[in-house]
Amino acid sequence: MIVVMAPAADAVEVEHVIARLVERGFDVHRSTGAERTVLGVVGPTADLDPAELSLLPGVEEVVRISSPYKLVSRAFHPGDTLVRVRDVTFGGEEVVVAAGPCSVENEDQIRRTAAAVRAAGARLLRGGAFKPRSSPYSFQGLGEEGLALLRRAADEQGMALVTEVLDPAQVPLVAGYADMLQVGARNMQNYSLLRELGKAGKPVLLKRGLAATIEEWLLSAEHLVVAGNRDVVLCERGIRTFETATRNTMDISAIPVIEKRSHLPVIADPSHGVGIRDKVPAMARAAVAAGADGLLVEVHCDPDRALSDGAQSLFPEQFQALMDQLRIIVPAIGRSI
Amino acid sequence: MIVVMAPAADAVEVEHVIARLVERGFDVHRSTGAERTVLGVVGPTADLDPAELSLLPGVEEVVRISSPYKLVSRAFHPGDTLVRVRDVTFGGEEVVVAAGPCSVENEDQIRRTAAAVRAAGARLLRGGAFKPRSSPYSFQGLGEEGLALLRRAADEQGMALVTEVLDPAQVPLVAGYADMLQVGARNMQNYSLLRELGKAGKPVLLKRGLAATIEEWLLSAEHLVVAGNRDVVLCERGIRTFETATRNTMDISAIPVIEKRSHLPVIADPSHGVGIRDKVPAMARAAVAAGADGLLVEVHCDPDRALSDGAQSLFPEQFQALMDQLRIIVPAIGRSI
Amino acid sequence: MIVVMAPAADAVEVEHVIARLVERGFDVHRSTGAERTVLGVVGPTADLDPAELSLLPGVEEVVRISSPYKLVSRAFHPGDTLVRVRDVTFGGEEVVVAAGPCSVENEDQIRRTAAAVRAAGARLLRGGAFKPRSSPYSFQGLGEEGLALLRRAADEQGMALVTEVLDPAQVPLVAGYADMLQVGARNMQNYSLLRELGKAGKPVLLKRGLAATIEEWLLSAEHLVVAGNRDVVLCERGIRTFETATRNTMDISAIPVIEKRSHLPVIADPSHGVGIRDKVPAMARAAVAAGADGLLVEVHCDPDRALSDGAQSLFPEQFQALMDQLRIIVPAIGRSI
Amino acid sequence: MIVVMAPAADAVEVEHVIARLVERGFDVHRSTGAERTVLGVVGPTADLDPAELSLLPGVEEVVRISSPYKLVSRAFHPGDTLVRVRDVTFGGEEVVVAAGPCSVENEDQIRRTAAAVRAAGARLLRGGAFKPRSSPYSFQGLGEEGLALLRRAADEQGMALVTEVLDPAQVPLVAGYADMLQVGARNMQNYSLLRELGKAGKPVLLKRGLAATIEEWLLSAEHLVVAGNRDVVLCERGIRTFETATRNTMDISAIPVIEKRSHLPVIADPSHGVGIRDKVPAMARAAVAAGADGLLVEVHCDPDRALSDGAQSLFPEQFQALMDQLRIIVPAIGRSI
Repeated sequence: MIVVMAPAADAVEVEHVIARLVERGFDVHRSTGAERTVLGVVGPTADLDPAELSLLPGVEEVVRISSPYKLVSRAFHPGDTLVRVRDVTFGGEEVVVAAGPCSVENEDQIRRTAAAVRAAGARLLRGGAFKPRSSPYSFQGLGEEGLALLRRAADEQGMALVTEVLDPAQVPLVAGYADMLQVGARNMQNYSLLRELGKAGKPVLLKRGLAATIEEWLLSAEHLVVAGNRDVVLCERGIRTFETATRNTMDISAIPVIEKRSHLPVIADPSHGVGIRDKVPAMARAAVAAGADGLLVEVHCDPDRALSDGAQSLFPEQFQALMDQLRIIVPAIGRSI
Repeated sequence: MIVVMAPAADAVEVEHVIARLVERGFDVHRSTGAERTVLGVVGPTADLDPAELSLLPGVEEVVRISSPYKLVSRAFHPGDTLVRVRDVTFGGEEVVVAAGPCSVENEDQIRRTAAAVRAAGARLLRGGAFKPRSSPYSFQGLGEEGLALLRRAADEQGMALVTEVLDPAQVPLVAGYADMLQVGARNMQNYSLLRELGKAGKPVLLKRGLAATIEEWLLSAEHLVVAGNRDVVLCERGIRTFETATRNTMDISAIPVIEKRSHLPVIADPSHGVGIRDKVPAMARAAVAAGADGLLVEVHCDPDRALSDGAQSLFPEQFQALMDQLRIIVPAIGRSI
Repeated sequence: MIVVMAPAADAVEVEHVIARLVERGFDVHRSTGAERTVLGVVGPTADLDPAELSLLPGVEEVVRISSPYKLVSRAFHPGDTLVRVRDVTFGGEEVVVAAGPCSVENEDQIRRTAAAVRAAGARLLRGGAFKPRSSPYSFQGLGEEGLALLRRAADEQGMALVTEVLDPAQVPLVAGYADMLQVGARNMQNYSLLRELGKAGKPVLLKRGLAATIEEWLLSAEHLVVAGNRDVVLCERGIRTFETATRNTMDISAIPVIEKRSHLPVIADPSHGVGIRDKVPAMARAAVAAGADGLLVEVHCDPDRALSDGAQSLFPEQFQALMDQLRIIVPAIGRSI
Repeated sequence: MIVVMAPAADAVEVEHVIARLVERGFDVHRSTGAERTVLGVVGPTADLDPAELSLLPGVEEVVRISSPYKLVSRAFHPGDTLVRVRDVTFGGEEVVVAAGPCSVENEDQIRRTAAAVRAAGARLLRGGAFKPRSSPYSFQGLGEEGLALLRRAADEQGMALVTEVLDPAQVPLVAGYADMLQVGARNMQNYSLLRELGKAGKPVLLKRGLAATIEEWLLSAEHLVVAGNRDVVLCERGIRTFETATRNTMDISAIPVIEKRSHLPVIADPSHGVGIRDKVPAMARAAVAAGADGLLVEVHCDPDRALSDGAQSLFPEQFQALMDQLRIIVPAIGRSI
């Protein structure tokens, strides 16, 4: 951390800041210039609040110079992390596609959808059994019965299964069925849940929160790694902005930013990103062209009758057409699909 | 819900939309005009997704005309709800102030702070024993030991106690110590937690999420009421915007908006709203002048040595000065403090 | 416009709203239901403020059902508009690339850069002679001398020229040199400038404002068309959000949204979109994959010594590599480059 | 500016950065630590782009340590600047209120409104003759005829007059009628206009842009001061956020932030801030309680029939009631009204 003293700060003020820092156990490197004094703070500053120092007399600005996350940073681990979910690898040469309905509704729906997305080239089946819904009056998912239906449909197609977990107490149950555990956007900072997932023994798909900065997102990934789980895949799914023409604004630039800052794989969810079916293929192509390691796409065998998020689910034939387009695009970035 | 057909929509398209709605159990009121047809959808539309209808051929726009929340709306209950926490009443003539440190750190700190805020006029003691922290390396709170210290300090001063609960499994424990249970901004859409709090038998203080619209915030309150708890106090604590000069942007206008839309009391947390001590009194005055039913203020007996959020905690004498200013302001809006 | 009366509204309140609307010259279509009354307002409602009606007693909500722009909408003109700038056509099968430095600095710089981007496949030369700068202490551009240098470099390479105009009084001067006139993000709602450009006789490149909704952006295009200029190309260049990891957040989803709502071509500016060179190619690929009709890319023959925006300018060889990638991508969407 | 080298940066990379900076004319202060090297850049860095340096090999982060504005900062001028508009002073002990209609519509309207706001205690008359409107189909103002009507109404009441100017070419005309020239939110970064206003010889009211950071807002004020006009009053009028319940989100915290960073007076416009009449008094009270040096309030003698922004204009009796409330509040902050 660097503490920039104001030009008008006097020696007493400078000494006071230094004393405060030394008292807290830090070493201080002082650099006195013609115009102002700058202090370099050396030591474990992750828990030192810049705002606190900025209130001391004579301080003009306080700047954190190291990222608050460590284990998930490229600086800590320069190579790409590969996350294996059964026979599928995230972060390697292949662009991995997970597809399926928003919610599992019944056996027929999930079996037909799984068969369709498998035929088009999806490697994982996605689908929700426990649904977080803004309205208490909306369909909340089938629960454990849904998990069993998902597992059977995935096995039938030889696919890996990713599904969401909402509550720390449910982690063992969901981990008993799924190959990969998804943390939804609303739970990105549910630290009780992250702590439990650290011990789950299954890879985690960590969605970005609606208002989370990339730094906060990586800090949540750090929570998982610190708690014991290194198999983390990040998922961009749109952030909240002033624009209301789309459900969210998909931050495609987060993909190259993550790629530079972290060794973890990053995929994109264009379905939640735009929230309406007719824009999903465009955003899926954009994410892959920008370098995403994979996609999470909502597909439903009969979207018009879906119990949740039907409007953003692709028809199976739309998903097939999208996969055909992606096969043309991926050589441009040296990938396969 | 109202479905506006495009001017170019033909009779087949209109009939198709009507058929789809009737199939889902709704009544449809059709209004045919010179330029276009408008359909009124009658029935329980809370779970009907406007986006889904908007994809049908010939549809130009779909508009939800009733708010998705019911029990918390003024339309449902025109009078003000009074929430009683021991001998204190939120939503009445008195502007209720809760004050205390961000975290309870030790017995001396919490006892001294409680005495100071009580002397200045605070009616509730606030303080965290379980802390949600972005960084896994930050102080996470004292846990149950902290709850016991808070309880003793509150009792000593004859104050009610409000503290945060993070995990559904902790609700009974925290409810055993506290008079009011706080849901933090990161957990506003943690529905497992809200469901558990519905059965807690203690009033809930529901903070607004960092990126939550007022509608989503009221929907989370609806979750609490549906789950069985009508004693809900809302708390504005700043939203995330592009401005970085303050930690968050406090949405003071949410106060009159909530007052018009809901019968629930709404208070404000200026400490998290701006995140830096020297702007807290200005924002506290602003919130009260705008009509807030109360304040949640961070005060620490020695902010410079606080283990968390020291930079936004007031010194006891600053809190006293603020209370004096508020006593001048409240008659302007017919309140007392 | 539709006026939704509250369930509790009585007959007097309904009549009062109708009388007010009739007095303003509108026809009102009344639909009385079991639960509530809904009024359809017929007539030229573009200048009727929904907020005004919403304040009348008994009104619950007011909904605008037609877009406030007309001439630029797909409803008005279903086919794609082709905008011709010399021998280049925006909005057709070709993805059109304009490239060049942020600012023209001297003859050598602009000639070398023009030659490089031409060789790689750019069809228009871009470059600024009048620069809007947040700081009054920054380089403000070469002015008319810069225009002459740009014109000569473009002619030498047989390229069309696009450059920014800042002030209504400068329009004739800039139109004397350039083939296409650019309106920068800061001027998207500078209506004096738009009015002047309506009469300029040259196509306009209209950048999206930093905080402009897609609707406001199309309304600014409508200003141009109403003022007499139908040759408008829209340009997405990033919006302001809470995320600070990139200079702006490029709203790639605006591309398919515009394509659905308007007949005007839409291109993307990845250089301003992310603001840092190493992420520009990823965002350029994303925009084209999402269906953009073209790109505006900053390229500088020596970015490290650029007088403005060097950090977001590509080296010529990076631009060449990007064009090669785009040639692989465009067949996926049935385009050429 | 401070350049933080990555821990892994080697001596060659450090030397390369230093050479580049020295070549650009800066002095470099090098501080070599156990973990990393930090470079202090000394000299006129206002025009040095941090993003550019951040791309050099081995650089981890670049931090600007001085604000890019100078003349408007408190560091440059610690005392409060008083801006005099005729007999009214902004920035002193008095909270100055400017009130009047959004647009001047006719003689009767402006005379009646001026008389009403004067009687209630307003010191300046506000009203628009040139209106920037998102839609080309909306009322655009009466032009010079409107200026004359405003001037006469202000004179009749002995009030100063503030009105908006849109175009650099109009500055002399508007300055011939008005006592204070307003720059609207859409024109905050219209540098041609700011340059012209620098020479206008009349005080300027500079509204904050919808998506402008406080730093950019102060930089626009710096443009005015550099161009020759030191009489600048800032006006917060709401920023654009994700919340749609109000027209904008009024950033009340900008008031104490500006007060700390700049010596210029800052006032608030609650009418545009929330955009709907019933919330205006609450926000006006909040702004004053937070320390605003004044208010700009829309009042109309017959708001229901206003040609623009009627919904956010107060009735004269509401304005009177508001002024009465403010008189109770201001002693809390040591001010008068």
